[in-house]
Amino acid sequence: MSEKNVSRVTVLGLGAMGTALAEAFLAGGHATTVWNRTPGKDEALVAKGALRAETVAEAIAASPLVVVCLLDDASVREVLEPVADALSGRAVVNLTNGTPAQARAMAVWAAEQGVDYVDGGIMAIPPGIGTPHAFLLYSGSSVTFEAHREVLELLGAAHFLGDDAGLAALYDLALLSGMYGLFAGVWQAVALVRSENVRATEFMAFLKPWLSAMFEGNLDRLATQVDSGDYMTGVVSNLAMQAAAFPNFITVAEEQGVRPDLMLPIKDLLDRAVAEGHGAGDATVAIELLKN
Amino acid sequence: MSEKNVSRVTVLGLGAMGTALAEAFLAGGHATTVWNRTPGKDEALVAKGALRAETVAEAIAASPLVVVCLLDDASVREVLEPVADALSGRAVVNLTNGTPAQARAMAVWAAEQGVDYVDGGIMAIPPGIGTPHAFLLYSGSSVTFEAHREVLELLGAAHFLGDDAGLAALYDLALLSGMYGLFAGVWQAVALVRSENVRATEFMAFLKPWLSAMFEGNLDRLATQVDSGDYMTGVVSNLAMQAAAFPNFITVAEEQGVRPDLMLPIKDLLDRAVAEGHGAGDATVAIELLKN
Ligand SMILES: NC(=O)c1ccc[n+]([C@@H]2O[C@H](COP(=O)([O-])OP(=O)(O)OC[C@H]3O[C@@H](n4cnc5c(N)ncnc54)[C@H](OP(=O)(O)O)[C@@H]3O)[C@@H](O)[C@H]2O)c1
Ligand SMILES: NC(=O)c1ccc[n+]([C@@H]2O[C@H](COP(=O)([O-])OP(=O)(O)OC[C@H]3O[C@@H](n4cnc5c(N)ncnc54)[C@H](OP(=O)(O)O)[C@@H]3O)[C@@H](O)[C@H]2O)c1
Repeated sequence: MSEKNVSRVTVLGLGAMGTALAEAFLAGGHATTVWNRTPGKDEALVAKGALRAETVAEAIAASPLVVVCLLDDASVREVLEPVADALSGRAVVNLTNGTPAQARAMAVWAAEQGVDYVDGGIMAIPPGIGTPHAFLLYSGSSVTFEAHREVLELLGAAHFLGDDAGLAALYDLALLSGMYGLFAGVWQAVALVRSENVRATEFMAFLKPWLSAMFEGNLDRLATQVDSGDYMTGVVSNLAMQAAAFPNFITVAEEQGVRPDLMLPIKDLLDRAVAEGHGAGDATVAIELLKN
Repeated sequence: MSEKNVSRVTVLGLGAMGTALAEAFLAGGHATTVWNRTPGKDEALVAKGALRAETVAEAIAASPLVVVCLLDDASVREVLEPVADALSGRAVVNLTNGTPAQARAMAVWAAEQGVDYVDGGIMAIPPGIGTPHAFLLYSGSSVTFEAHREVLELLGAAHFLGDDAGLAALYDLALLSGMYGLFAGVWQAVALVRSENVRATEFMAFLKPWLSAMFEGNLDRLATQVDSGDYMTGVVSNLAMQAAAFPNFITVAEEQGVRPDLMLPIKDLLDRAVAEGHGAGDATVAIELLKN
């Protein structure tokens, strides 16, 4: 942190996440300027030493590095487009959740304004920011990323994925899709046992070791299958057998008064894979059938 | 293993799983009699010392404990109903995958025939049988379970859940539903990054720590919320924010040529939870909305 220009950082957006980001910069000893659309959200930060900006333009003028964490892509456009001139020559690291296409469009817009643009995805919840559990994904201008890497690492481990600005969003949304699949499975499992008044805390004694074994035992094999395109070698639970057992997950839900909705598209996918002739192979082939 | 009557065991069904069960009993030094509808599947077992039965009745007559592992409930009925007389006074442990209602109906039928009935669920794949990773769930007659516990423990850790014969199937199907949710999430995540030719093996460097963190960080909290019915205390990522970000998972799939099918019911569930007024709470409230 020897150069003065990396020690000033602006945060636009003080929701739960923007506030956590600003706190981490402050804790790292940086001159942190904050702005939020609705006033009043900066009070705790200002008490900790943050500098309050009254306008977006003032916030941008305060620092060479502008970290953006708003609700969505539309709010980012709404906030940044009117201050394009002020942004010129500065670095924008946009940590707002969005799609790869949105990130790429923002990178194009930024280039037109002479703005150094890095897009990012935050793999943490606000209390995790600045802890060893947090990691963040970045893509876009590698020069800009490297220039500000030290400051950004205050938020969590920083992974630069490449100069395609859409990559961070792609990985971020892929990881979150994976998380929601896990959650949906857990919700369905807990709803099923709750229908017989089994305590969820007691059921965890089974669900945790089970999911953790399925996790440890399958992910590396799955990745190797996908990269090789070979879904036939060393199959232990063939897809046809899995598809044959799958109606039980629907039936048990219906019998127990639980909606089977979360399970239905998985059933359809496995059935389609069997119908397309993959019954003797591994269920991982489902990934190929997700391609449109 | 001092009593002679626990040292003879019969296995009906020599598919991938039935074969693994019979191997574990043989490895444990038990006189193991085997039967399969289609002949020829017992050869490797007979070479290891298994006794071949030509008929189901002969197989049942050979042992006081009959372990059943067929494709589904219909095949179990087809095999057992004609030999009800021979089964009388014996113990049947049915490890065929089925629903709680099927298990309960089978327990009623067994009681009518004077058969001691235990239903079970196998939480392992065939190569896992007899290893420390396998566990099995049992419910039904606790006396029968205890009488044969030592033999059954050769298959994997044995958990007796209660005298409602449907409980093992309920837990089993709940755990498997959870596993398929996890798999569906992983499939979706990998399909998304593959659309930009990211290698699945490289993506695992992100997906594994991420899912493992989400797993460690959320399951106990979720269980406590469900048991208390309090989804409002200590919320860090409110449901409304999660529902607002969710369309990104659909959009990114569509943009990348990946089917969003696996994500759609999760979106519907979160949207419904917001519409029903749970937006400020934790997403775990989704479990309540899975109730019909
Ligand atoms: N919280 C998490 O667990 C988490 C994790 C990873 C990523 N993220 C991402 O981080 C971003 C922020 O999340 P959050 O948790 O901080 O959400 P939040 O608490 O709901 O805050 C939303 C922020 O966006 C601002 N905003 C919304 N629309 C605006 C507009 N049109 N113009 C200006 N400002 C606007 C809000 O300002 P007002 O105060 O004026 O409404 C507020 O500062 C989202 O993209 C989210 O997906 C969050
Ligand atoms: N494999 C696993 O990973 C796994 C894990 C946990 C639980 N399970 C459960 O274990 C059970 C067996 O699975 P598996 O992997 O062994 O399946 P499998 O390899 O497909 O074997 C199916 C067995 O069922 C028999 N069968 C089917 N219909 C029959 C009928 N009408 N009458 C008599 N026998 C019939 C088959 O006999 P034929 O040889 O004559 O066809 C064969 O022995 C299933 O309920 C499965 O869900 C399997």
